[in-house]
Amino acid sequence: MKALVYHGPGDKSWDEVPDPVLIAPTDAIVQVDTTTICGTDLHILKGDVPAVTPGRILGHEAVGTVLEVGESVTNVAVGDRVIVSCVSSCGTCTYCRSGNPSHCLADEGASGIGWILGHLIDGTQAEKVRIPFADTSLYALPDGVSDSAAILLSDILPTGFEIGVRYGRVKPGDTVAVVGAGPVGLAVIATAGLYGAAQIISIDLDPSRLALAQEVGATAGINSGDDDWKEQVLALTDGYGVDVAVEAVGIPATFDMCTRLVRPGGSVANVGVHGKSVELELDRLWIQNIAISMGLVNTTSLGMLLKLVAQGKLPVDKFITHRFALNELMSAYDTFGNAAETKALKVLISR
Amino acid sequence: MKALVYHGPGDKSWDEVPDPVLIAPTDAIVQVDTTTICGTDLHILKGDVPAVTPGRILGHEAVGTVLEVGESVTNVAVGDRVIVSCVSSCGTCTYCRSGNPSHCLADEGASGIGWILGHLIDGTQAEKVRIPFADTSLYALPDGVSDSAAILLSDILPTGFEIGVRYGRVKPGDTVAVVGAGPVGLAVIATAGLYGAAQIISIDLDPSRLALAQEVGATAGINSGDDDWKEQVLALTDGYGVDVAVEAVGIPATFDMCTRLVRPGGSVANVGVHGKSVELELDRLWIQNIAISMGLVNTTSLGMLLKLVAQGKLPVDKFITHRFALNELMSAYDTFGNAAETKALKVLISR
Amino acid sequence: MKALVYHGPGDKSWDEVPDPVLIAPTDAIVQVDTTTICGTDLHILKGDVPAVTPGRILGHEAVGTVLEVGESVTNVAVGDRVIVSCVSSCGTCTYCRSGNPSHCLADEGASGIGWILGHLIDGTQAEKVRIPFADTSLYALPDGVSDSAAILLSDILPTGFEIGVRYGRVKPGDTVAVVGAGPVGLAVIATAGLYGAAQIISIDLDPSRLALAQEVGATAGINSGDDDWKEQVLALTDGYGVDVAVEAVGIPATFDMCTRLVRPGGSVANVGVHGKSVELELDRLWIQNIAISMGLVNTTSLGMLLKLVAQGKLPVDKFITHRFALNELMSAYDTFGNAAETKALKVLISR
Amino acid sequence: MKALVYHGPGDKSWDEVPDPVLIAPTDAIVQVDTTTICGTDLHILKGDVPAVTPGRILGHEAVGTVLEVGESVTNVAVGDRVIVSCVSSCGTCTYCRSGNPSHCLADEGASGIGWILGHLIDGTQAEKVRIPFADTSLYALPDGVSDSAAILLSDILPTGFEIGVRYGRVKPGDTVAVVGAGPVGLAVIATAGLYGAAQIISIDLDPSRLALAQEVGATAGINSGDDDWKEQVLALTDGYGVDVAVEAVGIPATFDMCTRLVRPGGSVANVGVHGKSVELELDRLWIQNIAISMGLVNTTSLGMLLKLVAQGKLPVDKFITHRFALNELMSAYDTFGNAAETKALKVLISR
Repeated sequence: MKALVYHGPGDKSWDEVPDPVLIAPTDAIVQVDTTTICGTDLHILKGDVPAVTPGRILGHEAVGTVLEVGESVTNVAVGDRVIVSCVSSCGTCTYCRSGNPSHCLADEGASGIGWILGHLIDGTQAEKVRIPFADTSLYALPDGVSDSAAILLSDILPTGFEIGVRYGRVKPGDTVAVVGAGPVGLAVIATAGLYGAAQIISIDLDPSRLALAQEVGATAGINSGDDDWKEQVLALTDGYGVDVAVEAVGIPATFDMCTRLVRPGGSVANVGVHGKSVELELDRLWIQNIAISMGLVNTTSLGMLLKLVAQGKLPVDKFITHRFALNELMSAYDTFGNAAETKALKVLISR
Repeated sequence: MKALVYHGPGDKSWDEVPDPVLIAPTDAIVQVDTTTICGTDLHILKGDVPAVTPGRILGHEAVGTVLEVGESVTNVAVGDRVIVSCVSSCGTCTYCRSGNPSHCLADEGASGIGWILGHLIDGTQAEKVRIPFADTSLYALPDGVSDSAAILLSDILPTGFEIGVRYGRVKPGDTVAVVGAGPVGLAVIATAGLYGAAQIISIDLDPSRLALAQEVGATAGINSGDDDWKEQVLALTDGYGVDVAVEAVGIPATFDMCTRLVRPGGSVANVGVHGKSVELELDRLWIQNIAISMGLVNTTSLGMLLKLVAQGKLPVDKFITHRFALNELMSAYDTFGNAAETKALKVLISR
Repeated sequence: MKALVYHGPGDKSWDEVPDPVLIAPTDAIVQVDTTTICGTDLHILKGDVPAVTPGRILGHEAVGTVLEVGESVTNVAVGDRVIVSCVSSCGTCTYCRSGNPSHCLADEGASGIGWILGHLIDGTQAEKVRIPFADTSLYALPDGVSDSAAILLSDILPTGFEIGVRYGRVKPGDTVAVVGAGPVGLAVIATAGLYGAAQIISIDLDPSRLALAQEVGATAGINSGDDDWKEQVLALTDGYGVDVAVEAVGIPATFDMCTRLVRPGGSVANVGVHGKSVELELDRLWIQNIAISMGLVNTTSLGMLLKLVAQGKLPVDKFITHRFALNELMSAYDTFGNAAETKALKVLISR
Repeated sequence: MKALVYHGPGDKSWDEVPDPVLIAPTDAIVQVDTTTICGTDLHILKGDVPAVTPGRILGHEAVGTVLEVGESVTNVAVGDRVIVSCVSSCGTCTYCRSGNPSHCLADEGASGIGWILGHLIDGTQAEKVRIPFADTSLYALPDGVSDSAAILLSDILPTGFEIGVRYGRVKPGDTVAVVGAGPVGLAVIATAGLYGAAQIISIDLDPSRLALAQEVGATAGINSGDDDWKEQVLALTDGYGVDVAVEAVGIPATFDMCTRLVRPGGSVANVGVHGKSVELELDRLWIQNIAISMGLVNTTSLGMLLKLVAQGKLPVDKFITHRFALNELMSAYDTFGNAAETKALKVLISR
């Protein structure tokens, strides 16, 4: 089959590779109908994730069709249309059973990380993919949910909801500030209403992203290039700050912004992937009764979010900006990698 | 009356001052039967808390007897034996009504801080003290609870429980590491069992404090001077770290220790009062699904802890190391200020 | 002033009565700008609530203007436009401080019930009303929120939200069945989205109410007169039942329906006011892992719901079906009392 | 092998039967080292559980040694000492993944009930037993935990903790009344301290059980034969009743007692297995803001409780009153079935 293979920093190609085969009785082989590219894939290509070794097929998001299942798989069957979770979880280890499958300890990963697709094992940017622990890592798709909606459930919507909204402890009536309106920031904005946020303030440097934020649920947009961004936020609250500040960029400056926007008793939810440490002003913050959270998505909300998507309750049609055929994956990377110009959010790559 | 008055950095004295009088209809005047000294008082005396101005009577902990009440006070009456909460809260502002009286917005403090005694208004290290918002800031003492037990409820036990145990989300079966075995660290240890901790690991440099920690509930003690302190902790867990790490010192090094001891999915609860910012290694931690909490005590657990003290369920008899008469307050400061030598934890100062 | 006075079962009149006066320093006198009638008022008029004695002014819902305040009142001032909570709470007793002001123990009620207006003391169906504990029982209204929206916050929206949605533990993705589409059932439907319900099924005998239910948020309507109402509900779930079943009628048959609709692990939230005991089939249900809740509204969500109303996030414009002047209160009772014919939901009675 | 076989109401015998064999790749065969008898087994023998058909081997509690595992089993290995959970759960169905494995939908049970051992498939009162879904239904035993402690983790301690303490929402400082001091009532009492109960009141007709209750953690005992049992309970609280009332008998009278003991805002947790419906006085209770819970144990707390047992934090040595060899199982039934005379609580039956 054909697949997008990583050959070391800066080096990838669309190669002919052997088809995947069942290894464990809990495996399934899935034909990839639709996949996409994540910011993390760009990091890998830069060489920032040394655990990814040359020869690896990239990608951890997919919607597909089950081609083959191992003998102990019972929840999905050949022919089923499925969503592939970006986290592969055994369902039986300590972490899986305590609600943290993102730290699954099963042999397959050998690393205590549930994100193994396109990382520690071959991924979804290919014609077919082997999915370990199929019973707990694949989700059958109901009729009527399109691939372009379903693909958002592999990673980005659960990430926004679990790491932004739930870890941020958003509750009815809250004011939520989301710093960063890229795909994952928009996913936070699109799901903050599930806990009844009254105000959702999007903060970004790019006016076009702020406009899009309002289409998916933001009630206000503030340009972080403005000198008075903080005052603008305070003017939208009672002067004490927001209940929840979500970091969706991944750099020290935006993390710091969040600690300045949050009110006493509030939460800072870090969703961004960071490459550096940050300065935490505990001398100022120890007295503020705030909580700071962070983490890798567990996708334990995937099934629930799928119900909401099936009911038409989430603005999933706003995320896909570009479409490609599977054999155009190299071009899709170009478009996605140059988002500043192309305005790409999520690129859909379909069979 | 006599009172301990702050006259500027390094300068305090036991002075004759005017008696306090009722100002608002919600006030009470309380005779101080027992008070104590807190680490925060030492910080104030160093000049670290500029909001405290010369002439201020220090102290925010007391057990006393109600001498007089304003006309709208209904929960306590003249002659009642009461505990004074270190946090004065109006009970009606946004913060009080949302469970954060430590950020009470009432006029009295004018600062959005519920800790005003011995800080923004005159405190408890005196023969008498005016308590604002008596209905929500005083707690009637049942017979049979001694002053030496009750005084711990003014601040230290609620602080350990609320900011360490509850913010740390301790749950039955958890392993909890408490870094620092001073008074507040011991208060965390003494109350961690209220949420069923299975293991409580005390970590400190002082062997005598580690021994005391085990008397109040620690199941293990580790000397943080040992090179292999981290390995010792991991050996007591399954190798993945503790469920909850509590910082009870207030310096960058101990905060950093906590982020190294906590397992994926766990919590770091900061109880220490910090004078500097810390480095937070988000590049390492963003993927760890941990939560970091911090804050000033709300004392919303005071009434509940009082029930447990009355039932003999907390090891309150281990905290008081020295006793003084009220007119020996200056000597009490000497003893408490030199804890390394005197081994003082809480000093009891009684009428 | 004029007021609607209860003179015993079946007997009420629009009488001239003395103006209310301040009694306690925590009281306020409020001019009633808008009031309404609740189903409970009809129960009282039938003589079903013996605690209400002849001579009592009825009514526990109002929007008004503060005319006078006692000397310890600080949160509202003369001239403020306010919502009157149907629950009067002291803010300092055990129940108030533990989140159950509906069981406030303050002297005023002398009964451990926070609902005292139009019950144990004179109520809001009058030109003026005395409000005890003004700081914790009145809520200042922001500009831009109309009386017809605000009046729903006195009782009905908090009741639907707190007793139906919150006690029912609605969570994102849930399917919620609401049995009864009268005012309070509609309030449940209108607020279930605040916790992200995916499906909201309204069940009632009246097609016009089912239609209205869909206007305020129901995703499906089922006529309980249909023989196969249960099968229709199961067909909308996976066959196992709903996550949350809300009883919003108050009779044994509808309570029983709820226990038949709920899935294992789900919740039955009773909102209805019952006049008889019900049979609870514990022989069938003990193994079902369900929770059954019930209670009087606390209105602790009033301030939060007000924020959402101010943001235009709740369909408040659908509840008011009829409007009257204050001196037409007797006619308003006729219209509201004959809802089967008049299709009245909430009747607005304004100055 | 030998096994205790049910032959219809009132008819059981110790028979020679075929050895169990692996059927699915997720199965394990376990040698039974220790088993016990549950009240439910007596119900089955009376013919009260029609789903149990003649020929069925009874028993759902065991500690044993793994003899053989299916090819996809990874969490336990041949030779491991294990606890058998009374609930067999697939770990991957909707109910298992939402924390309700007691309603596991896997094929094995075909009934949406996770309790299948000694019910829908052959059980543990035998020399060997086949355990489906071994990865999620067996728990490896650490050295140092005896069979007599571990056997309590199969069912009774998790039942008391999950259905009594957790469903009852016990929190630090609470007063808990437990009606019934049989094995499961004692299990509630022994685990209520894990959420910091201040007072635990045991209520029973048998003074010897009340005495035992105090040995495992009750702070008071009240004889329900006393006319003033209710007044005695109120005298131990502030007159308003207990925070949590646990029903641990299974008859209407004791359920009714619980609804009379609980305070406004409190919880009634039903643990008893009921054979009849009960009358629920909603006319009295609708206004009381209480929650009533019930259910079959999930054993999701088994691993956690095992940690606490290993730490010596639970009074497990008080539950075993009689010991038998495996081939004396018929006599063990006689002793357990005649508990009024033999004072049997749990009978230990060991290889």
